[in-house]
Amino acid sequence: MERVDIAIIGTGPAGLEAAITARIRNKKVLLIGEPDLSSKLAKAHRIDNYLGFPEIAGEDLGRHFQKHLEQIGQEITQDRITAVYSMGDYFALQGKEEIFEASSVILACGVVMEKPFPGETEYLGRGVSYCATCDAALYRGKSAVVLGYSPKEEEEAAFLAEVADKVYYVPMYKADRFPGLGDSDKIEICGEKPLEFVKEADGMVLKTASGQDLKTDGIFVLREAIAPSQLVPGLETDGSAVVCDRQMRTSMPGLFVAGDIAGAPYQYIKAAGEGNVAALSAVNYLAEQKRKAQ
Amino acid sequence: MERVDIAIIGTGPAGLEAAITARIRNKKVLLIGEPDLSSKLAKAHRIDNYLGFPEIAGEDLGRHFQKHLEQIGQEITQDRITAVYSMGDYFALQGKEEIFEASSVILACGVVMEKPFPGETEYLGRGVSYCATCDAALYRGKSAVVLGYSPKEEEEAAFLAEVADKVYYVPMYKADRFPGLGDSDKIEICGEKPLEFVKEADGMVLKTASGQDLKTDGIFVLREAIAPSQLVPGLETDGSAVVCDRQMRTSMPGLFVAGDIAGAPYQYIKAAGEGNVAALSAVNYLAEQKRKAQ
Repeated sequence: MERVDIAIIGTGPAGLEAAITARIRNKKVLLIGEPDLSSKLAKAHRIDNYLGFPEIAGEDLGRHFQKHLEQIGQEITQDRITAVYSMGDYFALQGKEEIFEASSVILACGVVMEKPFPGETEYLGRGVSYCATCDAALYRGKSAVVLGYSPKEEEEAAFLAEVADKVYYVPMYKADRFPGLGDSDKIEICGEKPLEFVKEADGMVLKTASGQDLKTDGIFVLREAIAPSQLVPGLETDGSAVVCDRQMRTSMPGLFVAGDIAGAPYQYIKAAGEGNVAALSAVNYLAEQKRKAQ
Repeated sequence: MERVDIAIIGTGPAGLEAAITARIRNKKVLLIGEPDLSSKLAKAHRIDNYLGFPEIAGEDLGRHFQKHLEQIGQEITQDRITAVYSMGDYFALQGKEEIFEASSVILACGVVMEKPFPGETEYLGRGVSYCATCDAALYRGKSAVVLGYSPKEEEEAAFLAEVADKVYYVPMYKADRFPGLGDSDKIEICGEKPLEFVKEADGMVLKTASGQDLKTDGIFVLREAIAPSQLVPGLETDGSAVVCDRQMRTSMPGLFVAGDIAGAPYQYIKAAGEGNVAALSAVNYLAEQKRKAQ
C-alpha cells in the first residue's frame, strides 16, 4: 500500500475532525477505525455541551459526523493497530493482516481506563497478545485464554478457536449470551475475575479472584484501546495519557495525539478541537520535512 | 450586582461553549459580549471543518450557537470590558458603566492582530483611552481623536461629541459613509493613517503618515479586542497570545483563557474545545477555593 501523509488511528470526534481538517489541507489521509465510528459515542444517551447541537443523542451526533465524513469523501479503513514504530522518516503501523506506512501519525484512539494486569506488559509478545488475528497461527494445537472487553471480541475468540485446540473466553462485560462465539465445542466460557498473569516454564497462568487459575499457552487481552506506551514503544506518557504540548506534539517528532488519549477532560468537543490542532500540526510537520529534504 | 461564579468575556465559539459547560455544572455565569455573537463568525463565508456541520455558512452556524444558548437559558450581557483586576479572592471587571464581580474569569475575547501604536501602551490612562463611554466626562470642553476599528465605534464617537468640543474620527476600516456619527458639526472625519502617539506638555499628538499631525487632548483607540496585557495588568503573555497550559490556566490563579486569545491555530472548533476545558478548569478552581475556605 502507498505511503500516506497522515495516518489517523481512531474514529471518535478527535480522529474524525483531524481527518476532515487534513483533507481540507489536501493531505492523503488513512483513517483507521470502525465504520460505526465510536461505540462510546453511540451509547451516549444525551450530550448537552457540543456547541451547536443542544440536547442531542450520541447516536444522532454520530450521524452528523458520518455525514460530514461522507461529504468530504474520506473513507474509514476498518482495522486495529496494535503497534506503531518510528522508522526514521516514516512510521510503520501494524494492522491485523497488513502493515501501513505513513509520514506522520495522529493517535486518537481513546484512553485505556483499566490498568494493565500484573505481568501483562512484562510478557507482551512472550505469552501475552493484543491481536487474535495477528497471532492465531502461533496457537495451532495449543490453548489460549481470551479476555474480551466488548461483545465484538467474541468473533475474535471464535476465529482463534478455528486454529487452537482450546479457547477459554473470559467476558469482561455483562452479558447473558455470547452469540459471536458461535457453536464451537472448543470454546469454554469462564466467568472468573482475572487478577494476574504469571509465566511458567511450560506456559502462562491466569490467576483469578476465586483461586481457580487457568493454565494455558497464551493470554489474549482484547480491549477497545491499547495503552499508549504499549502501542508506541518509547513514547513519553503520564499515567494513562500521552504527554503533549498545546500543539498536540508528543515526545516523538511526527507523532501527534488528540482526544481522550491526550488526557482529561474526556469531552466530545474538546476531543474535536484537539483533532483540528493535531491535524494542522501534522501539516506543518510535513511541510518542514519537505523543506529539510530539499 | 451580585458576584457571579464565572465571568466569561467574549461570545465567539470559545465563550459560548464555556458558558454552556459552566451552566451544565450549575455555575452562575455572566456572559459578556454582543447579542449578535461574533462579527468574525457572521462574516465567514463558509466553514468546512466544524465537525458535524459540513459546508456551513458562518451566519448559519451562528444561528445554531444562538439556539443552543437559548435552550440552556443563558443570556448575554452586552458590554465591553476594558480592564480586569485581580482583587485577591475575586476579580473586578470594568464595563462601560458598571463594574462586575466574579470569583473566576474566562477570557475568550479573541486576538488583537494589530500591534499597539508607539506610545499607546505607555500613555494608556494618561491621554490614551479604550472606552469613550467610560472616559467621555473627562473631555468636557476639550478635543479628542477617535480611532474606530469598526462601524459600531461611530456611535461611540458621536456620544463623545455630545460632551467634547471637537472630535476627530479616524476610521480604521474602509467605508464611504459613516452613518453612526450622526450630524454633529463637532465631528470631523480624518482620513490620515496613524503612526505614533506622542505626549506633550499640553496634550497629545497623533503623528500620521502624511505628516499632518493632530494635536488633541486625548486619543481613543476603539478596537474589537484589547491586547491581553492591557486588559489584565500583570498577565503573562507571549506576543499576541496569553501564556496558558493544557488546562487553559494562565499565570493568574482563577483566570483562564480559550480561543484565539490562547494562540494559533485560529479555528472555530479549536476555540469551542478550549472553551469547554476552560470552563471545567474554572469549576475545579472554584471547588478548590471552597475547600480552602472551609
